[in-house]
Amino acid sequence: MKSCWRRPQVDRRVNSIKPLVITMGCPAGVGPEIILKAVGFRRDWLDHGKVVVAGDQAILERASKVTGISVPIAEWKPGKPVVLGHLNLLPVTHLDEDEIPYGSPSFVTGQASFKYVDAAISLCKGDLCSAIVTAPISKIGLKYANIDFPGHTEILAASTETKRFSMMMYGAKLKVVLATIHCPLRKVAEYISLELILEKLNLMDEALRRDFAIKKPKIGVAGLNPHAGESGTIGTEEEEIISPAVRAARAKGLEVSGPHPPDTLFFRAVQGEFDAVLCMYHDQGLIPFKLLHFWDGVNVTIGLPLVRTSVDHGTAYDVAGKGSASPESLVKAAELAFEIVHNRLAYDSSI
Amino acid sequence: MKSCWRRPQVDRRVNSIKPLVITMGCPAGVGPEIILKAVGFRRDWLDHGKVVVAGDQAILERASKVTGISVPIAEWKPGKPVVLGHLNLLPVTHLDEDEIPYGSPSFVTGQASFKYVDAAISLCKGDLCSAIVTAPISKIGLKYANIDFPGHTEILAASTETKRFSMMMYGAKLKVVLATIHCPLRKVAEYISLELILEKLNLMDEALRRDFAIKKPKIGVAGLNPHAGESGTIGTEEEEIISPAVRAARAKGLEVSGPHPPDTLFFRAVQGEFDAVLCMYHDQGLIPFKLLHFWDGVNVTIGLPLVRTSVDHGTAYDVAGKGSASPESLVKAAELAFEIVHNRLAYDSSI
Repeated sequence: MKSCWRRPQVDRRVNSIKPLVITMGCPAGVGPEIILKAVGFRRDWLDHGKVVVAGDQAILERASKVTGISVPIAEWKPGKPVVLGHLNLLPVTHLDEDEIPYGSPSFVTGQASFKYVDAAISLCKGDLCSAIVTAPISKIGLKYANIDFPGHTEILAASTETKRFSMMMYGAKLKVVLATIHCPLRKVAEYISLELILEKLNLMDEALRRDFAIKKPKIGVAGLNPHAGESGTIGTEEEEIISPAVRAARAKGLEVSGPHPPDTLFFRAVQGEFDAVLCMYHDQGLIPFKLLHFWDGVNVTIGLPLVRTSVDHGTAYDVAGKGSASPESLVKAAELAFEIVHNRLAYDSSI
Repeated sequence: MKSCWRRPQVDRRVNSIKPLVITMGCPAGVGPEIILKAVGFRRDWLDHGKVVVAGDQAILERASKVTGISVPIAEWKPGKPVVLGHLNLLPVTHLDEDEIPYGSPSFVTGQASFKYVDAAISLCKGDLCSAIVTAPISKIGLKYANIDFPGHTEILAASTETKRFSMMMYGAKLKVVLATIHCPLRKVAEYISLELILEKLNLMDEALRRDFAIKKPKIGVAGLNPHAGESGTIGTEEEEIISPAVRAARAKGLEVSGPHPPDTLFFRAVQGEFDAVLCMYHDQGLIPFKLLHFWDGVNVTIGLPLVRTSVDHGTAYDVAGKGSASPESLVKAAELAFEIVHNRLAYDSSI
């Protein structure tokens, strides 16, 4: 029954949108390797011209050697058609591989890391690419290069003049957003506020509708304290800050509930009770997320005008050059970027 | 090949030890129901006389009606042999079921809850039972009855004059101990200390060896802050408190490591890198534990001279009397109690 054969639905949709751009990340990290492995695994992306890479030819060729994955590389320039079956490379830098030892961030790697994402932003602004998928870069490298951003997210926000944005950790079973991130635990209670929680809830609600095609997103808000404070007997932040924020969000029509006891909330979310969970602090969200999505978690920046997803791991300097890093998070990040682009197009054309 | 037939090893071991005593818990909660369901599911315990129940006949008969599980009840007194195939009941109270509405803690339920565990302690002290398995009781009920203990654990510690003890949440995939429990999040950093962490590590090491038959237990200690403080840039408690405690434990010969970044530690433990994890606060441990062991988690009190396990849930007053509560945690708690008794006998006879 050959006539019954259908390509997967997602691919049909993907084929109607522009290629996404993968940034190579720190040339001394695992980025180049996982890009090779990812396109080796999803060769169909190359066959259909669905990705371009903003990176460096010599560094990608070195990655090809350490991974044993051989993919023909075609130089690509904005405006040129992509060469099907090839890894289409926008050669942003021309590095000497001998000057980029694996595992060592430097002025050169920091500068290159920045250039790749900067080029990718231009491609999206110029409507030549549909989304950005970032391989990992190093804060230390950026610092060496005197680039005053802690990471990709802030570079993207500044370039697009976005004031309200957030990281969402995305997995098939669990999606979490953090109200506070790299904050000492003893300071978390001081840093959360009604305004902060409300801002995160608005961002989540919009992203879940527009980027993830959920018509009525259900968001669960975690308490800060054990048992969500147990009516004020184990902490007062639930009654003073989180509950008023949840009420304010509900008054605006958002389907938000909580604060829920944190220890059972994530199980409930995985069971389908919530589409996403707003967490008060880093480990409250990342402990359950990494337990479920250690290998395949994706970091999505919500609130940006452009679509950006990222691997959820770092440069992994300790294994860079060994060919052992897993490309799973990068593959998932690219698949999710296609999905978001498709969903945004459908959402925007429906309103 | 009938001659090759063997009863499972665990049962052979269990058959050589004294029965355990299950306390009925709050008569207005789900305790009586889950006991009926548990012995209905593990009828072999009754067939081999492996459990007795410290409880109340009228209340168990009511539970039999709501669960639809009919088990013959035999009155049992200390010193009498158990009646095989029956639920052997030590009738600690003689309550009027009409005075015990489901879901309502009272002076009577609080007093009864205390009496069941008190009777169970006597049975273990008198060497008539090998272990105590507790069904849930209510803090509010204990308060109504002017019993000045927050829960079972403290009653057991006082009755056995035990000063150093701890709750361990036990599951097949993950075992966690909490350094602080019902403490507001903003206070956790103040409450942890080198002495507290060292005490917990000693308790864990001994319990893992003696109760869980692990010859060289590997314990992972969680950091308090994101990324375990990232060398002091996101909090200083790791360098000031946790690392010195880990070093002190290692100096005593314990196989302890950390402080580890909390967001990946539980995944690593599940992969087999650690036998148990010491957590700094309630939700750090209970979020991953309940995500993995929502239904089958067991609460074990470590450090007591007697063996005590418990369900890891409360009285569930909202569903009491509906026959819907799951007995899974109680079944696992009793199975684990048998296992610990066996392991302790083997350990104590080997030293």
